Amino acid sequence: MFNFNYYNPTNILFGKRQLSKLKNLIPDDAKVLITYGGGSVIKNGVLQKVKTVLAAASCEVLEFGGIEPNPKFETLMKAVDIVRAENVDFLLAVGGGSVMDGTKFIALAAGSDTFKGEEEKILSFGFAPVPVTSAIPLGTVVTLPATGSEMNMGAVVSRGEDKLPVMSPLTFPKFSILDPELTFSLPKTQVANGVVDTFVHVLEQYMTYPAEGRFQDRTAEGILQTLVEIGKKTVDDPTDYDARANLVWCATTALCGIVGAGVPQDWSTHMIGHEMTALFGVDHAKTLAVVTPAMWRVRREQKKDKLLQYADRVWNISDGSDDEKIDAAIEKTEEFFHSIGIKTRLSDHNIDESGIERIIQGLEKHGMTKLSEHGDITLDISREILRTAL
Amino acid sequence: MFNFNYYNPTNILFGKRQLSKLKNLIPDDAKVLITYGGGSVIKNGVLQKVKTVLAAASCEVLEFGGIEPNPKFETLMKAVDIVRAENVDFLLAVGGGSVMDGTKFIALAAGSDTFKGEEEKILSFGFAPVPVTSAIPLGTVVTLPATGSEMNMGAVVSRGEDKLPVMSPLTFPKFSILDPELTFSLPKTQVANGVVDTFVHVLEQYMTYPAEGRFQDRTAEGILQTLVEIGKKTVDDPTDYDARANLVWCATTALCGIVGAGVPQDWSTHMIGHEMTALFGVDHAKTLAVVTPAMWRVRREQKKDKLLQYADRVWNISDGSDDEKIDAAIEKTEEFFHSIGIKTRLSDHNIDESGIERIIQGLEKHGMTKLSEHGDITLDISREILRTAL
Repeated sequence: MFNFNYYNPTNILFGKRQLSKLKNLIPDDAKVLITYGGGSVIKNGVLQKVKTVLAAASCEVLEFGGIEPNPKFETLMKAVDIVRAENVDFLLAVGGGSVMDGTKFIALAAGSDTFKGEEEKILSFGFAPVPVTSAIPLGTVVTLPATGSEMNMGAVVSRGEDKLPVMSPLTFPKFSILDPELTFSLPKTQVANGVVDTFVHVLEQYMTYPAEGRFQDRTAEGILQTLVEIGKKTVDDPTDYDARANLVWCATTALCGIVGAGVPQDWSTHMIGHEMTALFGVDHAKTLAVVTPAMWRVRREQKKDKLLQYADRVWNISDGSDDEKIDAAIEKTEEFFHSIGIKTRLSDHNIDESGIERIIQGLEKHGMTKLSEHGDITLDISREILRTAL
Repeated sequence: MFNFNYYNPTNILFGKRQLSKLKNLIPDDAKVLITYGGGSVIKNGVLQKVKTVLAAASCEVLEFGGIEPNPKFETLMKAVDIVRAENVDFLLAVGGGSVMDGTKFIALAAGSDTFKGEEEKILSFGFAPVPVTSAIPLGTVVTLPATGSEMNMGAVVSRGEDKLPVMSPLTFPKFSILDPELTFSLPKTQVANGVVDTFVHVLEQYMTYPAEGRFQDRTAEGILQTLVEIGKKTVDDPTDYDARANLVWCATTALCGIVGAGVPQDWSTHMIGHEMTALFGVDHAKTLAVVTPAMWRVRREQKKDKLLQYADRVWNISDGSDDEKIDAAIEKTEEFFHSIGIKTRLSDHNIDESGIERIIQGLEKHGMTKLSEHGDITLDISREILRTAL
């Protein structure tokens, strides 16, 4: 097992009607900016419920809607201006990963003068913590189970064609309210995306090489098995509470740090997928479903031990040679994605050889020339992976 | 899945040589009271290492040794007096569960005037939070993997023949340093105790009835499987780093809250075991190994679904009738305990029928007349469980 640091102070309130506890979680008389996305929280009534609880707590409430999927720096800066002008004390993100990620950026940008006037620099630190010493505190009300942003310190913000990571322990939400019922009204495709997103978040921390992280491996496999068990059910029957509750909690635990602490991590599937989203507008999760099987086909030797472990423990595959077991595990994974309506080929998204070259150029531009847990996925290997996914 | 609240802000530093980071974790120039137990940390050099790091951080350091197993109120009050007289800013527990638990009590008792002069009242709140608003901050350096106290807000303190729970979110350690190498010098019996303690901590949160906590079940099973895989190895070969690292991390995660959030919990094995320790001085873990198999033999109907799940997923038992599978799982569990030198009968500890009656009287005295996840284990059923364990 590798040395590790695990720290996660987010207070999770999980289950039915937890929204009512909001009034105990935000400081009395705070000036709160509620942030949200394209308006689904207006249509489904969640925004109004939040406002009703905050009004009872005598909070002054402002709103900032319109945070788009893959939240844009320019959009978020409008909220930063409001937070500064209005002296907002607390940010409450009501939505999914993009709203939460965007709100984390707002918290950092408006929470100190360190980068005032040059906030784009906040996007320049990659996976190192942004060097600020204060941030506006934030909480979340989660309406889309997928990114795990509700219980971690990371965000991804878009600027032009770049998707850029933002990390800071100051952006751990103070609390996150996870009521599975608030997610019942989601479109099926977004739920399916959430299943795949969660599945691949776990894989990025698991499908590497054995490192004696037995708790971590078992927990990772437990989330994968759970998603296989409840994935189709929660897409097909959105009001099945227990199935949805399991998806919601797995989406959070997949990326709260507990699976990846002390073991190698890969994330090359995400890096290649980010370019697909930036260039072709393909949903994040749908890019992961395309890249993952191709990644494994190309990297079967480097990932052999863990692919066999995955075949055995997640899919109960015991017959055949090692190669046959690995093939069967890849096929099972693809079938699982297909079963919830998620496609697994580049051609399904109208991306051809010329599109692959644009993706490779994007990786090169962003310095993604040595990906993987071994740092050995060159641009040529990325190209081979993408061609395998055609 | 049940509604739940999960909050755990302890900063974990895990791995080799993490002690060197201590200087970044304690406020500059703090006055630190190091607490420890019977002196093994003097013999194995850990105390000196801690003092060397703190000296480099210009901390003023005081020491309080002699916290006994099942830490006593009277002993801990001596440390409370020192903290008050010397205006100590920070408590650093160096040891195992008893030292950490005792230090949590010291932190609460000395951290406010709420119970000054009547500190025994701190032991009267059971599993409800002690009603204080401040505590002395504490950190831990763990030398014995077992209780999980390093990453939770609970403690058990003894007063006379009573073992009493103490709970407060103010007693989450600010940090815990978990270096598996610091545990290499432990006696085999203490390591074996740690394996069983961890195993049964998980069981108390798992062996109940199905409640659609799939992540929780899989994570619980993952810890149990890991302990089965590495338990004997880490007892027999104490310097095998990876085996010990897996025990250390499982001991922590077993009781950090992640396994039990949103699912029913039992804890009757612990309640019965506590009486055995208080009356007969049997090691905590050794009481659990005696009560667990007898508990399951008596409660096989109430726990049938989970016993079958345990048989299948932890022990791969697929042959036979349901009853045969359950019997096989109980026998496998006993064999596992025996394999690391832990006995499973009351008679192994020279406790007979008259001893059982004393245990029953203890349970009655402490109000433990309706135990289990269903609240239906009466004193008569506890007696039946103990007779089954003779």
